Amino acid sequence: MKIGFIGLGIMGGRMARNLLKNGFNLVVYNRTKDKSLPLLEAGAEWASSPRELAKKVDFLITMLSTPEVVEQLAIGDQGFLSNLPHGSMWMDCTTVHPAFSRKMAALAEQHHIRFVDAPVAGSQKPAEEGQLLFLVGGKREDVVFCEPLFKAMGKQHIHLGDVGKGAALKMIFNLLLGEAMLAFSEALALGLQLGLEKSTMLAILLEAPITAPFLKDKREKLENEVFETEFPLQWMQKDLQLASISAYEQGLALPALNVIKEVFAQAKQHGLAEEDFSAIFKFLKK
Amino acid sequence: MKIGFIGLGIMGGRMARNLLKNGFNLVVYNRTKDKSLPLLEAGAEWASSPRELAKKVDFLITMLSTPEVVEQLAIGDQGFLSNLPHGSMWMDCTTVHPAFSRKMAALAEQHHIRFVDAPVAGSQKPAEEGQLLFLVGGKREDVVFCEPLFKAMGKQHIHLGDVGKGAALKMIFNLLLGEAMLAFSEALALGLQLGLEKSTMLAILLEAPITAPFLKDKREKLENEVFETEFPLQWMQKDLQLASISAYEQGLALPALNVIKEVFAQAKQHGLAEEDFSAIFKFLKK
Amino acid sequence: MKIGFIGLGIMGGRMARNLLKNGFNLVVYNRTKDKSLPLLEAGAEWASSPRELAKKVDFLITMLSTPEVVEQLAIGDQGFLSNLPHGSMWMDCTTVHPAFSRKMAALAEQHHIRFVDAPVAGSQKPAEEGQLLFLVGGKREDVVFCEPLFKAMGKQHIHLGDVGKGAALKMIFNLLLGEAMLAFSEALALGLQLGLEKSTMLAILLEAPITAPFLKDKREKLENEVFETEFPLQWMQKDLQLASISAYEQGLALPALNVIKEVFAQAKQHGLAEEDFSAIFKFLKK
Amino acid sequence: MKIGFIGLGIMGGRMARNLLKNGFNLVVYNRTKDKSLPLLEAGAEWASSPRELAKKVDFLITMLSTPEVVEQLAIGDQGFLSNLPHGSMWMDCTTVHPAFSRKMAALAEQHHIRFVDAPVAGSQKPAEEGQLLFLVGGKREDVVFCEPLFKAMGKQHIHLGDVGKGAALKMIFNLLLGEAMLAFSEALALGLQLGLEKSTMLAILLEAPITAPFLKDKREKLENEVFETEFPLQWMQKDLQLASISAYEQGLALPALNVIKEVFAQAKQHGLAEEDFSAIFKFLKK
Repeated sequence: MKIGFIGLGIMGGRMARNLLKNGFNLVVYNRTKDKSLPLLEAGAEWASSPRELAKKVDFLITMLSTPEVVEQLAIGDQGFLSNLPHGSMWMDCTTVHPAFSRKMAALAEQHHIRFVDAPVAGSQKPAEEGQLLFLVGGKREDVVFCEPLFKAMGKQHIHLGDVGKGAALKMIFNLLLGEAMLAFSEALALGLQLGLEKSTMLAILLEAPITAPFLKDKREKLENEVFETEFPLQWMQKDLQLASISAYEQGLALPALNVIKEVFAQAKQHGLAEEDFSAIFKFLKK
Repeated sequence: MKIGFIGLGIMGGRMARNLLKNGFNLVVYNRTKDKSLPLLEAGAEWASSPRELAKKVDFLITMLSTPEVVEQLAIGDQGFLSNLPHGSMWMDCTTVHPAFSRKMAALAEQHHIRFVDAPVAGSQKPAEEGQLLFLVGGKREDVVFCEPLFKAMGKQHIHLGDVGKGAALKMIFNLLLGEAMLAFSEALALGLQLGLEKSTMLAILLEAPITAPFLKDKREKLENEVFETEFPLQWMQKDLQLASISAYEQGLALPALNVIKEVFAQAKQHGLAEEDFSAIFKFLKK
Repeated sequence: MKIGFIGLGIMGGRMARNLLKNGFNLVVYNRTKDKSLPLLEAGAEWASSPRELAKKVDFLITMLSTPEVVEQLAIGDQGFLSNLPHGSMWMDCTTVHPAFSRKMAALAEQHHIRFVDAPVAGSQKPAEEGQLLFLVGGKREDVVFCEPLFKAMGKQHIHLGDVGKGAALKMIFNLLLGEAMLAFSEALALGLQLGLEKSTMLAILLEAPITAPFLKDKREKLENEVFETEFPLQWMQKDLQLASISAYEQGLALPALNVIKEVFAQAKQHGLAEEDFSAIFKFLKK
Repeated sequence: MKIGFIGLGIMGGRMARNLLKNGFNLVVYNRTKDKSLPLLEAGAEWASSPRELAKKVDFLITMLSTPEVVEQLAIGDQGFLSNLPHGSMWMDCTTVHPAFSRKMAALAEQHHIRFVDAPVAGSQKPAEEGQLLFLVGGKREDVVFCEPLFKAMGKQHIHLGDVGKGAALKMIFNLLLGEAMLAFSEALALGLQLGLEKSTMLAILLEAPITAPFLKDKREKLENEVFETEFPLQWMQKDLQLASISAYEQGLALPALNVIKEVFAQAKQHGLAEEDFSAIFKFLKK
């Protein structure tokens, strides 16, 4: 089996490397080639386009930034769907909304391609250490078929139901991530105004059961107000927008989410798009 | 030293009992006498009014529902401030905003009464087990003076600065509590619409680092959608309003908080005031 | 020239009738045939499907409920785009977002069909009286070509620029409509709680320069709290969602809009989807 | 009858001048004396403090910036309430919330002072031309007693009920003003992003029935993006906060208001406090 991997960013690059480490044959493609160099040195093969890549593999993994980018690389004569062999498997690990996964699965089926949505919970470090959690939607036999790859890149995979269910839960993870980050930032900003010391607050709040544990990983950033990017603010904004659209499609009102997504949008508008999403604190504090 | 205790609700009753257990002399008052009966049996003395109580003690603890109730019992000829002996200590454990604590401290000083704000982090169970965390504002010597009582009722106290600083951090705790509860409820509601199973989501999300640990205590309520009251929704709404007012006083915009408090207000308007604040899920889900 | 008209709802039916009155040959289609009966009696011809209609006309007007419905009737073998003669004109009067208009224009062009977006400002009564205002996007020669039809159905048309500009301004009209309706409802609800009489408030506020004049048309509904549908609440919610999506596509944060759309979504969730959008008052008041 | 007038800002100065023009004897006080100079030249008498002023008059008008300022000048030994003759009348024209008016009326009664709340609808120009609309709360006989003064400063007064009802409706006026200004700003900001021209939008939207007529007065400001202060943004923010607090006191959820007040708070935080409240457009647009 030959694996194609498209999207070698912070997460994708580390996931691809774990595939190599586990002995998989890898063909890689990325919009900018430089990100692929360490992988090529480690034995991966380069493809000059999604189309070229698709012709060489029978299993495709995509780990991209937005649904729009996925769609753009997937469709048309130059897209990978027209060029993968019949019966290939496409595993999309991108954070998308479930309606998009279902649309991609339907397109894939037209090209006789199998599809699972398998976005991941976990950031840079678990990606590096092969400790990701895969949230998976798709047919049982397809999910079983993917197991060796889940094992190479992660510590666990959960099959949540048919196509789109993995995407659904990942979107919900990020909704919780974004809402918690914003709530914590508002809390800190208020505390500062009321004369509490930031380090004291961080020490107390981060140990309290009212605070999501991932926030400990943001402690240094919040302390120093340097927001080196792990997960860019603009992607968080995108994910919250996807959740908003999914809620709309379901006829579900989500008032908090819809405000919170706009606060991230404001922060983006004020120049924080590329910083870590914890930079929302910088936007809020006085 | 004789201790007066006003406010024997879910929290106050348990805190008073721990004082008794630790050998303190206790005089108690509550708006409705029935809540005091177990304490009276255990050796506490009853006072028929705040005024009567104040005349009998030299240390007063208040654990009430809102700043308005505190103020009402404190001031005027019938209030406790005019009737406590000079040099007494008043420890207010009510969840209030810091400006209110400072106002009470100033009033207390006019009556030659010492004041600390010492609201608690922790709910029913830690209250029962003497495992509360006291968040304390006040003069160093006053806080030191209160230590034996903190020890009788809690596992730790943190002296955060001058008067109002304890109230400030407690208000921030509840802000985080309310925002996390609402975010989690929106997440669950969205997941349900997207076809994910509630029990599966609870199993995964409550173990994930994106979720505040206190939410595990709400699992059964969310599972069964029976929201037996631990912390009433209307008090959460009140605390969020206090945080909103404090932010306004500081010239600080908090967009998420100000929407979230309105969602709790909507839920209250729809008849959920007396249920546990986790009943916000019931209001949101379709 | 033979005109096809698809979508004979509250607005479309009245617009089509004005075309008949002005002597145009009309072929009509609607999802439910009964709505076409008065037009058929007045001389219009019935088509049994979008496809049948398209084969008979060289000018198509669509006045539908959502972009999704437009797309569904437009594309595929059964859609009107594949079946209109080359060189035909398609005027879409549906309230959509500008990105959708541009997408439709591009699709139309592939079928050698000309396209203008021409949504209307004005409700039932101006539609009936041929007093609509057309907000138009498209190529100058195409807009000029449509002038006789604008004149038959409206009092004015404004050519705002290339394709999508008409849709853009119409979306903005509805954003203002929805936000004003909600603001006025919140104002009334607050006044009632504060002991002001509704009729007094309506008398004063509706004459004051702080109130959009269209609200006078809602006076009876607000007075009697019977919200007979002119413009359904669920379509307002849809239009606000379109505006939200357009803002997102432009990287623009719109916090008020994004909350207001959720309040309409809540009202929809509480069973008010089919009532007039002024029924938002019923949802808000205590 | 001798009239005292405290608060000679943009509105108060013009109102006081109309009293002089109508032959009333006037004693004036303002925090900064320079604003009184034109009135002194025109025959008003200066008082060096609220206390001095109170001793000289039997009718007091206050037109101040916030409830806090009113309270500060009213109470204590140096305040005007202790120093006005028994039986005097106090007309408070400040924009406050109704609970505050009721509190002031109760305090006034303790000092044997009569009280009406009589805030005004109308800005600088109507103030200058004696064309204000007084929204009045109080006892019938007190309101009747004030009529000559309403006539000197305004074109109409409406007696809305007992104390606080004038304040209530004025607060609602400003809520509508603020929400309409923000909605229009969001609309313009979105239109600009979508490629519509600002001047075209202003021309169309300001004439449409979806737009509150007062917005025409902001046209030049929006056109040139120079926001010379008529009504400072920070006062709008204050008034929206008062409405939010009043709604809370009434147990009424107002989601749109509570977000909109935060957007004004953000604009204030970003340095726009002293500009006209229409400067909210500058904060929102990209």
